[in-house]
Amino acid sequence: MSYDALTHHFEQQHHLQHLGAICGWDQATMMPTGGSQARAEAMSTLAILSHQQLQAPQLADWFASAEQSPLTPEQTVSLQEMRRQWRDATMLPSDLVGAFSLAGSRCEHAWRSLRPANDWAGFLPLFEEVVNLSQQVAAARAEVLGLSRYDSLLEQFEPGMRSSTLNQVFTEVKQWLPTLISKVQDKQSHDTVLSPQGPFATEQQRALGLDVMRLLGFDFNHGRLDVSVHPFCGGVSEDVRLTTRYDEQDVAQALMGVIHETGHARYEQGLPVQWRKLPVGQARSMGIHESQSLFFEMQLARHPAFIKQLSPLLTQHFGDQAAFDPNNLAQLYTRVQPGFIRVDADEVTYPAHVMLRYEIERDLIEGKLAAKDVPECWDQLMQTYLGLSTKGNYKDGCMQDIHWTDGSFGYFPSYTLGAMYAAQQASAMQAQLGPLDTLIEQNLPSIFDWLQHNIWQHASLLDTDTLITQACGQPLNASAFKQHLEQRYLG
Amino acid sequence: MSYDALTHHFEQQHHLQHLGAICGWDQATMMPTGGSQARAEAMSTLAILSHQQLQAPQLADWFASAEQSPLTPEQTVSLQEMRRQWRDATMLPSDLVGAFSLAGSRCEHAWRSLRPANDWAGFLPLFEEVVNLSQQVAAARAEVLGLSRYDSLLEQFEPGMRSSTLNQVFTEVKQWLPTLISKVQDKQSHDTVLSPQGPFATEQQRALGLDVMRLLGFDFNHGRLDVSVHPFCGGVSEDVRLTTRYDEQDVAQALMGVIHETGHARYEQGLPVQWRKLPVGQARSMGIHESQSLFFEMQLARHPAFIKQLSPLLTQHFGDQAAFDPNNLAQLYTRVQPGFIRVDADEVTYPAHVMLRYEIERDLIEGKLAAKDVPECWDQLMQTYLGLSTKGNYKDGCMQDIHWTDGSFGYFPSYTLGAMYAAQQASAMQAQLGPLDTLIEQNLPSIFDWLQHNIWQHASLLDTDTLITQACGQPLNASAFKQHLEQRYLG
Ligand SMILES: [Zn+2]
Ligand SMILES: [Zn+2]
Repeated sequence: MSYDALTHHFEQQHHLQHLGAICGWDQATMMPTGGSQARAEAMSTLAILSHQQLQAPQLADWFASAEQSPLTPEQTVSLQEMRRQWRDATMLPSDLVGAFSLAGSRCEHAWRSLRPANDWAGFLPLFEEVVNLSQQVAAARAEVLGLSRYDSLLEQFEPGMRSSTLNQVFTEVKQWLPTLISKVQDKQSHDTVLSPQGPFATEQQRALGLDVMRLLGFDFNHGRLDVSVHPFCGGVSEDVRLTTRYDEQDVAQALMGVIHETGHARYEQGLPVQWRKLPVGQARSMGIHESQSLFFEMQLARHPAFIKQLSPLLTQHFGDQAAFDPNNLAQLYTRVQPGFIRVDADEVTYPAHVMLRYEIERDLIEGKLAAKDVPECWDQLMQTYLGLSTKGNYKDGCMQDIHWTDGSFGYFPSYTLGAMYAAQQASAMQAQLGPLDTLIEQNLPSIFDWLQHNIWQHASLLDTDTLITQACGQPLNASAFKQHLEQRYLG
Repeated sequence: MSYDALTHHFEQQHHLQHLGAICGWDQATMMPTGGSQARAEAMSTLAILSHQQLQAPQLADWFASAEQSPLTPEQTVSLQEMRRQWRDATMLPSDLVGAFSLAGSRCEHAWRSLRPANDWAGFLPLFEEVVNLSQQVAAARAEVLGLSRYDSLLEQFEPGMRSSTLNQVFTEVKQWLPTLISKVQDKQSHDTVLSPQGPFATEQQRALGLDVMRLLGFDFNHGRLDVSVHPFCGGVSEDVRLTTRYDEQDVAQALMGVIHETGHARYEQGLPVQWRKLPVGQARSMGIHESQSLFFEMQLARHPAFIKQLSPLLTQHFGDQAAFDPNNLAQLYTRVQPGFIRVDADEVTYPAHVMLRYEIERDLIEGKLAAKDVPECWDQLMQTYLGLSTKGNYKDGCMQDIHWTDGSFGYFPSYTLGAMYAAQQASAMQAQLGPLDTLIEQNLPSIFDWLQHNIWQHASLLDTDTLITQACGQPLNASAFKQHLEQRYLG
């Protein structure tokens, strides 16, 4: 039967991805430098092979025939998700794929030295090539999918999301965010906050991280914690490989990082066992994934009730300090300060960084903005949203992120979608289970159960809109997020 | 050109093997238990895929055409080695491969509980099935290769080696070994040897292991040391993954284990860079591989001159003990004691374990011995070679090794071939460079250079006979090994 043949084929694909995920983790955590060339070649062979398998000629027939077969509703969705993966892998002419990938590698490689040198002039031609090829990719995808160019890229990370929706929700956020930021700054200007004094030994930080992961229900029979330069949540859902990095002067970085990645990890570990090897059993979207990490990091870990549980753990691992007082930590972990760098931004100013990037990348892809005009546009939007100028400061401006260098246009919105979904989930959860502080204090597992039941177990069996509406009682909107920020930062 | 097409094809194969090697290492060292089912499935998909690629229909034509092309001598050997790998992968009917693999898995799985229970009756039917299928595999291989059945299995591990040669060399060893063993026991019966007193903390043992690996020239830019239940040397030659296990009561086990595996590792790290992705660039045979580990462990590390360097390292990591005196350590590391268990055997009694297994497995495969008669035969040979009876003691007799449970017949001789090759190499090296104690004391790197020049750099570019004759001035024979044992144990 064609459906079974497809299922088998995609399970094989999944097994190859498993090997790639583990070897990718190894590359970032374990591999000695001298192994990198051989590894890169092995990974590249795997990617080619995996892509070849998706292009097997029999797949088209199998899809056509399977779509005529009697299937259960879940099988029907599974078939759709296999088709989506197949379509994404076969939609573009292979010379365009090659050129796009080459331009991306070149630009990203150059960026690693051009960014520290603040060399926009050197970066621009490489970046223009990436934008140019991204436009071609977008045009080809748009044609097949019947979407606008930018939406065709967005579709890769956020199936079903459209720029019309983003425009609407971001327009609303822009109306209240700048005012909110200044109000919070005013309010916090009177606070005195103590910083914990290091050094904080790596081994103790690791032990603290493991304690907090246990508290958050991470399943160590199906995962582990290691160190990498750029923290991530990798591996496979049966064996989630979470990483962090340790700064001996700053305990919050690894602590909050581990909590964030644990949110990603629990989503992976909570995906439904019977669908794990198929596309339909994977995480719904980047935005939903980020909603889980931000639920853990923002809704949960920076909540005063959770900080009350973090405080004794810090004392236990690093001795007593006045800065570890729960009230001080709560202030420390919710400080708001507009800055240049997205990855260092707090919960309140973060959406400004994302909206700015969204507007620029959307216009770049739609051909309404030229690559050479990005710095000026960036500077203007930074001034509008955060009151900061990046004139001439490319390295802390439009050259700060890796995303655009390899053509990952359409990804940035996921971060703020995640923040909004997380707020909606927290709001719905409280409406159903009672106030978050009580849940945190008395029944932490009930929070995870709610997420398991409402988000994790559905994997990609529901589309994002249905998933969120079913879980939260309403589709994507910014009001729960606004309410959360106002309550936490101005309440 | 067909030669290039083949080269590309086998390089792709190598890249897949790379991923399998790293994921195999991860499985043994890093993977949490809960990940094992998914990993086993992913590894199995890789094996199937890799096997399919070797069965690609175009390969036969490419081989035929490449063999007509003008090639350099090295390319000609490379082609031969590709053909060998291809031939091995395609020679057997796939239903036989499937049945053999299934019987092996079943028998090995059952063995894990039947051995501790000393349950020969439960083991026999499973073992008979493995022997039966191994005979069929041997017969099919024999037919294609024009070899005897047992030789066709030996050929998998020791290309070019024949049982006629083994019979000859082992017959010679049998003439002097039992006498030598009793002489050594007599001589040692007067010695008083101190055992180092533990516990030896794992972290310190690891630090000692790393020190010794550095002393032995292990390249940490292309490898690392970790922990696994069953120590091995894995990974790829660009990134060698060496493992050990630590017993807090016994520092010698991990120390000698690490030195042994470092011998394997340096061979891998010393393979010629330009051939690494092809069959011709791989280690020559299991026996040559073992000759390197045994050179490091037996010729080098248990040599009094090397022990003089180990002694201060032990003191440095564990404090001063009378047992760490070099003279005591030298006695300790060369104690001879006949025992039941091969893996615990010393350098002198080890060949007896191997010869016994060789005679039994040869006769099993050639149909001259029935599986049910193995325990009796084992008991007789143990009495003859080591004066020990295993009557009724199956778990310390014929059920002690994993090798036969999955049908790895033909592998055991490699251990003693390795010991003999190592002795030949040490003898030739000394004839060329001077006495080993001087080299160890004054110029350790010259020893590694000799091995690099005479063994490692040749990979599979020479056949074993040529490799050994060229390096040592004569083909395989037991006299250097005999001389080494007499000098060390009776001198
Ligand atoms: Zn994240
Ligand atoms: Zn070995």
